[in-house]
Amino acid sequence: ADASSVQIFGIIDAGVLTQSKSAAGGRLTRLETSGLRQSVWGLKGTEDLGGGLKAFFNLESHFDTDTGGLHGTGDNGTPAVGTVLFRRQANVGLSGDWGTLILGRQYGPALLAHIGTEPRAFKEQFSNLYAWAYNQLEPIAGAGSVNSNNDVGIFFKNSIHYRNTFGPVTAGVLYSLGEQAGSTSNNSILAVGLSYSGPVTLSFSHEFMKDQITGEKVVKHTGVGAAVPFGDFTFKANFLRGENNNADGTTSSKVNGLGVGVDWKWHPMNNATVAYYDNKDKENKSNHTKNLVLSNDYFISKRTTIYAQAAFVDADAGATGAAALKTSIVADGSFKPDAKTTFINVGINHNF
Amino acid sequence: ADASSVQIFGIIDAGVLTQSKSAAGGRLTRLETSGLRQSVWGLKGTEDLGGGLKAFFNLESHFDTDTGGLHGTGDNGTPAVGTVLFRRQANVGLSGDWGTLILGRQYGPALLAHIGTEPRAFKEQFSNLYAWAYNQLEPIAGAGSVNSNNDVGIFFKNSIHYRNTFGPVTAGVLYSLGEQAGSTSNNSILAVGLSYSGPVTLSFSHEFMKDQITGEKVVKHTGVGAAVPFGDFTFKANFLRGENNNADGTTSSKVNGLGVGVDWKWHPMNNATVAYYDNKDKENKSNHTKNLVLSNDYFISKRTTIYAQAAFVDADAGATGAAALKTSIVADGSFKPDAKTTFINVGINHNF
Amino acid sequence: ADASSVQIFGIIDAGVLTQSKSAAGGRLTRLETSGLRQSVWGLKGTEDLGGGLKAFFNLESHFDTDTGGLHGTGDNGTPAVGTVLFRRQANVGLSGDWGTLILGRQYGPALLAHIGTEPRAFKEQFSNLYAWAYNQLEPIAGAGSVNSNNDVGIFFKNSIHYRNTFGPVTAGVLYSLGEQAGSTSNNSILAVGLSYSGPVTLSFSHEFMKDQITGEKVVKHTGVGAAVPFGDFTFKANFLRGENNNADGTTSSKVNGLGVGVDWKWHPMNNATVAYYDNKDKENKSNHTKNLVLSNDYFISKRTTIYAQAAFVDADAGATGAAALKTSIVADGSFKPDAKTTFINVGINHNF
Repeated sequence: ADASSVQIFGIIDAGVLTQSKSAAGGRLTRLETSGLRQSVWGLKGTEDLGGGLKAFFNLESHFDTDTGGLHGTGDNGTPAVGTVLFRRQANVGLSGDWGTLILGRQYGPALLAHIGTEPRAFKEQFSNLYAWAYNQLEPIAGAGSVNSNNDVGIFFKNSIHYRNTFGPVTAGVLYSLGEQAGSTSNNSILAVGLSYSGPVTLSFSHEFMKDQITGEKVVKHTGVGAAVPFGDFTFKANFLRGENNNADGTTSSKVNGLGVGVDWKWHPMNNATVAYYDNKDKENKSNHTKNLVLSNDYFISKRTTIYAQAAFVDADAGATGAAALKTSIVADGSFKPDAKTTFINVGINHNF
Repeated sequence: ADASSVQIFGIIDAGVLTQSKSAAGGRLTRLETSGLRQSVWGLKGTEDLGGGLKAFFNLESHFDTDTGGLHGTGDNGTPAVGTVLFRRQANVGLSGDWGTLILGRQYGPALLAHIGTEPRAFKEQFSNLYAWAYNQLEPIAGAGSVNSNNDVGIFFKNSIHYRNTFGPVTAGVLYSLGEQAGSTSNNSILAVGLSYSGPVTLSFSHEFMKDQITGEKVVKHTGVGAAVPFGDFTFKANFLRGENNNADGTTSSKVNGLGVGVDWKWHPMNNATVAYYDNKDKENKSNHTKNLVLSNDYFISKRTTIYAQAAFVDADAGATGAAALKTSIVADGSFKPDAKTTFINVGINHNF
Repeated sequence: ADASSVQIFGIIDAGVLTQSKSAAGGRLTRLETSGLRQSVWGLKGTEDLGGGLKAFFNLESHFDTDTGGLHGTGDNGTPAVGTVLFRRQANVGLSGDWGTLILGRQYGPALLAHIGTEPRAFKEQFSNLYAWAYNQLEPIAGAGSVNSNNDVGIFFKNSIHYRNTFGPVTAGVLYSLGEQAGSTSNNSILAVGLSYSGPVTLSFSHEFMKDQITGEKVVKHTGVGAAVPFGDFTFKANFLRGENNNADGTTSSKVNGLGVGVDWKWHPMNNATVAYYDNKDKENKSNHTKNLVLSNDYFISKRTTIYAQAAFVDADAGATGAAALKTSIVADGSFKPDAKTTFINVGINHNF
């Protein structure tokens, strides 16, 4: 391929993360991958086919800078998939005046819709990316339920995705083929995302995922958000509602995740953020965390950022074990239940 | 490495495949990777050493666009190999006036010889690529037999490959070292391929693979083919004979695969193909499929093709389970035995 | 990323290796990956941040040319890591007048210090790279001991590495965070390397690794070396001392590895080396090998080398099974104990 047909891209992110308490006991200090954004490498390209038509592809692999290993996925179910080299993207598509059509493994439109309104832009650490992911993770979602196309409600296998922009509105709808003999409904996923980008940004999303065997909607997930700029400040609010059901249709959890925050671009090379998250499972009310996050990103260059971020997690007694993940803003939910834990993370994020 | 020493290349292929019946039951519709050609990415390069001598390398990885996972291999046996990142090629070589020598994991010369004569050019869906592969797959090949250098008779580990072109004739011979203590014969493979490219194309191949423990020839595989151009048409015929034996030397299967077809280049940007396959196991006569395939490839550009293809599979009762693979023209042999199944596959193939 | 921000690099190395005897029995002949250097591919880049400050990253993956598989690692312990795509390097860093700081998975400073003094420059075959690696491999190191940051004393996970050059002296110190709740000591690693490059080259290293549970120093490893040039000759000597302890602090092995050798650059395109290794476990005195190695590297170009190398291994009776690895100069320690084994390896090494 000549230079014009393929681009290599990536993000390498690493830092030190220390937390005052841990689920297992005392202070825990780690070299942490991906404090700001996920470490990835990938290939992408676009071909001009004439008449406004373009073909394109995306391959994007997710790894951990601290270990060199491929980052684990939320893939599950039958058939099992081999080593997922390209967890984030493996797709091909066409775009034109009529919009964009993407086939393969890809980002869903729901999360994409909220990037501008989530208080911390779904940063890897200390945002509602985790409440998002773990309320759409099998088998945590519900007892015995499986949807083999779903990887934490962010990445979708076997999917067809249509996107278009109408003036200030961007819309996307994704359908994952269930691939079950004799049923087009079982194991399927429908996800939609809408965003409005005027001076004010608004976002809406809805997703549901059906069980592979029973066809019950084992995950129902809805989000709304808004961002309002005011001088050097941008005020943001985002609300998520994740309902998880068992394969027989009974309810497993109903998590409300509310995040509010403000970005302060106090210097051309610096952005500070204050955010507050209140995440609660209405089916298990003691699974509840309140979280305050303070951070500053120092942009040394367009490609390199030094970041410092602190989170204060106040967890109720039910925010423990696998359940803790559903109300967590921390990558692995490793705070102490029924206690207050302080996290400090300093690192570097480099893009190429 | 500077730009002249390494090239990035790849194919991303995805589409929708629906079949009227499935082995498990009713209609099955899937997002299908690699309808036309395998989805791959790789690196390759050539270095001019002067005096006509060149060094080169090839790294080629095989993945699935629908899932992002590395495509499963037919590797087996002892020693086990780690995650096969570069299933298709991981090799280095030298070329000169005297020919080409390639060391490592690589394509064998047998399949390469028939690409010009196989009615559908060994396309990933609906060609005798599958009868080829599954009659050279361990352990399906024979009870208890193992050859750890063989990956579906297409890719070979631990191999030395010599190729040369003499006027219209291209010849290749590959030897996979058995790597068994005290024996150079056990676990070895010999594969040869010959093709003649005049106005008429002719092809011949032979392969045999020896069991790791007993040294019996557990796979013997032979192919002959011809292609004759006539205006915008090219007529093709290809015959494969795959004999699989158990480790003790008794016969397991003897499959005859006959394919005939015609390409019609009816437009500079379109090629239509009609092909017919009759594949039968003479040791298990009810394992028999008759297959008609119609297809059109629309070349939007040199790099991008939109394809539509239909297959009509008429399978006898013995074409079921693992045995079905040996007479299949479908990627996973998932048609219904003792029935007629219709497949329709529409997709996009993008090269970079 | 534009061309200036990312480089693709790699090494493809393959050859034929035959040995007169093998641990399992008679002569063994193999297509061997990586006779000279490990087969790798990777991405790297540097960004100039102004004022002498630079950001950089390295991703380096290790595979086998004979099989296409990812090369196995010496990773172990809890938590388990997914498929290690980037075994050798996955890191990001900053450099300036004050030195270089690297975060992530990376080469340690100890091995790096000795590359100029090890008689065969730690070549993949027939050098003390193996005595180095296997005296720092869990669980061979000691019964029940684990350090999950250590990959054969060469690659380190979760590590922070500072390097600097002071005139002729290069120094590096690496610390791997233990990441254990309530303890910063358990599972940690400290590694230092020092080299002096005047007309004479000197090297020193020390490493210790603590058990994940007990905090005992389960690996203590020290090296010293010197290289003296004399016309077309360079005389080298390197001494390694690897002490392995069990998790309870009792001693498991104490291996002394002595290597001496001479490089003879007898032609601008050729370098011949003679080396002798005497490796012995003082805790298990019959685990002792004496090894003579003769080799010639023919540099066809800057990027491509044809190599021929022979090793004569005289092993005592205790150099058998896993123990044999600790005194081995052969990649998998597959020589015959209580016998003399001759190895011949001819191959090609191509860099891009």
